[in-house]
Amino acid sequence: MQKIIVELGSRSYPIFIGEGLIDKPEIYTTLLKTKQVMIVTDAVVEKLYLSRVIEALNGVDVYKHVIPAGEIQKNLESMNEIITLLLKNRFGRTSCLIALGGGVIGDLTGFTAACYQRGINFLQIPTTLLAQVDSSIGGKTAVNHKMGKNMIGAFHQPHGVIADVSILRSLPDREYTSGLAEVIKYGLIRDHKLFMWLEEHIEELTDRESDSLSYVVEQSCRNKAEVVAIDETEKGLRATLNFGHTFGHAIETGLGYKYWLHGEAVAMGMIMASHMSVLQGWLSDNDMERIHSLISKVGLPNQLPQLLHSKDIRDLMSIDKKISHGRQKLVLLKAIGEAIVTENFQESFLQETIDFFHSKIR
Amino acid sequence: MQKIIVELGSRSYPIFIGEGLIDKPEIYTTLLKTKQVMIVTDAVVEKLYLSRVIEALNGVDVYKHVIPAGEIQKNLESMNEIITLLLKNRFGRTSCLIALGGGVIGDLTGFTAACYQRGINFLQIPTTLLAQVDSSIGGKTAVNHKMGKNMIGAFHQPHGVIADVSILRSLPDREYTSGLAEVIKYGLIRDHKLFMWLEEHIEELTDRESDSLSYVVEQSCRNKAEVVAIDETEKGLRATLNFGHTFGHAIETGLGYKYWLHGEAVAMGMIMASHMSVLQGWLSDNDMERIHSLISKVGLPNQLPQLLHSKDIRDLMSIDKKISHGRQKLVLLKAIGEAIVTENFQESFLQETIDFFHSKIR
Repeated sequence: MQKIIVELGSRSYPIFIGEGLIDKPEIYTTLLKTKQVMIVTDAVVEKLYLSRVIEALNGVDVYKHVIPAGEIQKNLESMNEIITLLLKNRFGRTSCLIALGGGVIGDLTGFTAACYQRGINFLQIPTTLLAQVDSSIGGKTAVNHKMGKNMIGAFHQPHGVIADVSILRSLPDREYTSGLAEVIKYGLIRDHKLFMWLEEHIEELTDRESDSLSYVVEQSCRNKAEVVAIDETEKGLRATLNFGHTFGHAIETGLGYKYWLHGEAVAMGMIMASHMSVLQGWLSDNDMERIHSLISKVGLPNQLPQLLHSKDIRDLMSIDKKISHGRQKLVLLKAIGEAIVTENFQESFLQETIDFFHSKIR
Repeated sequence: MQKIIVELGSRSYPIFIGEGLIDKPEIYTTLLKTKQVMIVTDAVVEKLYLSRVIEALNGVDVYKHVIPAGEIQKNLESMNEIITLLLKNRFGRTSCLIALGGGVIGDLTGFTAACYQRGINFLQIPTTLLAQVDSSIGGKTAVNHKMGKNMIGAFHQPHGVIADVSILRSLPDREYTSGLAEVIKYGLIRDHKLFMWLEEHIEELTDRESDSLSYVVEQSCRNKAEVVAIDETEKGLRATLNFGHTFGHAIETGLGYKYWLHGEAVAMGMIMASHMSVLQGWLSDNDMERIHSLISKVGLPNQLPQLLHSKDIRDLMSIDKKISHGRQKLVLLKAIGEAIVTENFQESFLQETIDFFHSKIR
């Protein structure tokens, strides 16, 4: 088992990474300071893992709340339901929530913990690769508003993260592969060594071999923890974690959040941002080729989906700009392992990038 | 004009106190870092002050949102409505909310600012004495759940507080007097000098004479700011601000939050907590007499309301205890100007106190 600390002073917390962790009572004993917890999970994860977690929580007063699976559940009404249950069962300020699931469960449970009586503890038990390497770490919690994703939220750090990598073997192929996009992202923005490791171990990775799962989750968590420790509330550095996401969100929104998974859109977004970095004269053609190659080989998209118009992508990308009343910021690459957040890019390269990939849609 | 700083490192902010401040453009210029603001207010305050604030905000892109007056508006639906407006008008992370009103408006607006895009700035323009001396300062924000007040909330500090004491002269007598309870509270828990000043200036105070208004608001804000700077999230010292509130909440709840104003219940709660402090052998009979006398002279209640049963009060007081799964804590006095938060009180004195005041109901 590996242990990585997210260093945030008095709010520091551990991420435990390893095989079969959810069955180990001592993990929970280490993390819990209360005898009263409520596990929030979805109907899919419930069937696979809930009873195992409850068994390991032997001796603790465990309540559970199961919601249907899906992003549509991530809203204020779902939060209000959980709060009703907490009040009915007299949960106090020292009690604890446990998020058992993917990003939707983690975001919803975390935001509820942030708001209940102005903030109680919560633990993350992420059950997808995306959640294990990204969303469960760093305290970004939120629910959706009908006009925008994650528009209602808080920075509220968990009290601990339990990343049981054996769970990753039960994921559908596409969901697992989607999570690899965020792993590749860490290599691209700040960890050339990780990127090279990924290039050399594609087969073990797609086979979900135990050591390679542990390695990529550990390295990803370490990168995320370092960034969050330096810039918890995204004043600067943390924005580099959005590499590929501005293009990616435009794709997701353009598709109405259907057909493509988040990681797939991010992967395509990373290819586009890399292409634009080449046009800027920052990234070499050789690095671009390596990025394109790795993303393609793990099975992530390297071309835009049909149904998307070039103008749509540009318009959707500028939503952020309009909202902030300022100049659009993009995360671009200076090299593999070195990202920058900048407003100083050439506007025409942005359109050129979109047109280039749009023209390649078959 | 007086200026008091709430010292919270990078989140420090000023409280401006004086006559006619809401009309002064330079106050807003000092505090605002954005050209896009939304004022949230209620229908009563709107008629009296909204146009004056908008006029002073000359040159700023001002949106407004007016809700009906009343505690019932302090809920998640009202927050969601404000967020819809913010999104429709493309408010970004650098925009700002302004809470123009009493505690309900401040709490609702502050919590909305805490959650919108994981936190934006907000200003407080408190229009009641209670809000000027207490609720607008210190970053406690919340909305109510149908099962409990302030159960959904956040610690989110404002970017500045504008306490225009001339507004206090427009308040109904009972609302003004209710606010004095919190002023007296600061004297009792940590400021003997303020308490003595109040004893000597009751007439100027009840006449709402300009200098005395400025003095009590300033001294109250200074006390609150000092406590919040030491213990922002109520791990210890800040709990002394709840002096009189455990008894007070029991009274408010027992009355279904009708008939009595918050400050009236707190005043009676302070008398009860003081009485219990005497039983503990901590507070002198003479100090008790001074407390009883000051509270009575300013026109606040010194006996329990009819309709309340002795057992009800005890039961309602123990709700906190059941929720926290621990021993009940109370704020009691060692002397005028010295409060302690303690679990180490004699249980029988609590019942004795309730019975004593219950027997005096006429």
